[in-house]
Amino acid sequence: MKGLIHVYTGNGKGKTTAAIGLTIRARAQNLRVCYIYFHKEPERWGDTEHGILAELGVDILGFAKKHPHFFKDVTKDETRKECLDGLEVIKRIFHENKYDLLILDEINISMRDGFLREEEVLEVLEAKPEGLELVLTGRGVPQKIIEKADLVSEIKAIKHPYDMGIQMKKGIEY
Amino acid sequence: MKGLIHVYTGNGKGKTTAAIGLTIRARAQNLRVCYIYFHKEPERWGDTEHGILAELGVDILGFAKKHPHFFKDVTKDETRKECLDGLEVIKRIFHENKYDLLILDEINISMRDGFLREEEVLEVLEAKPEGLELVLTGRGVPQKIIEKADLVSEIKAIKHPYDMGIQMKKGIEY
Repeated sequence: MKGLIHVYTGNGKGKTTAAIGLTIRARAQNLRVCYIYFHKEPERWGDTEHGILAELGVDILGFAKKHPHFFKDVTKDETRKECLDGLEVIKRIFHENKYDLLILDEINISMRDGFLREEEVLEVLEAKPEGLELVLTGRGVPQKIIEKADLVSEIKAIKHPYDMGIQMKKGIEY
Repeated sequence: MKGLIHVYTGNGKGKTTAAIGLTIRARAQNLRVCYIYFHKEPERWGDTEHGILAELGVDILGFAKKHPHFFKDVTKDETRKECLDGLEVIKRIFHENKYDLLILDEINISMRDGFLREEEVLEVLEAKPEGLELVLTGRGVPQKIIEKADLVSEIKAIKHPYDMGIQMKKGIEY
């Protein structure tokens, strides 16, 4: 069956959590899943959902973990280089074709913030194996990626507690 | 820390998957999670994500599994009765206060389709323990529930493949 390209975008909460949910659902069917994330440093937060995903047999990789907006010890050039490394790995995964589901968590941010050009990502997407299900998450997805995708969900924040000064809670928000 | 009321609504894909993702994230922190679903019959689909959640120590309960729109052997009255049973269990869970996160998957559908009145749900929500994080999913959430919630994400389908006649895929769509 044809594998679709899914996009989860928008300013609301639920993009990465939906990707995690899809990962769990796929593992419940014993599908082979690779979970690649960009611009996140889960290790510094202690145990996260990645630990559970790994235990469930998901292969996990992270690229450009420090976003230069938050970490002053990395440059934009370094971040771009690491994102390009990520693209190379995605190309190799497409070539090897050993997964049923590939998550690219926050890759939309890589494009939005100029670390990857949308043409670079689109070119890689051309080589997606027919049967592979692919999920891209993150705010600010470019229009051309929307056109390329089969399924696009925009998550809008109708109400968000940070507006009200409520603190983030470990195990729920991150 | 105060537990919030989250709502995932809208016509797009990602509401239940976000709830599953939140469940995984919470279990990664060893939080105690109860997952209650309405209007779904996961058993007839074979293995689903519920099996993995159960293995991870999540307590799972289902109510009004057959929606009368899809199953002609159940009546609306029977469905309402089963939804009310679900509300009673939620009340008891609030009273016992032994969970950190409670998911109410598709309870918005119970309200939208008239099996539960929004006032009945709102009255139960009044007794939510302070620290409990509560998640309601499903399309068509009533306005008063939005007002009561702390965090509301509306998932909009920008593009949906069923429009294009693409078949649902086990392990990805359900």
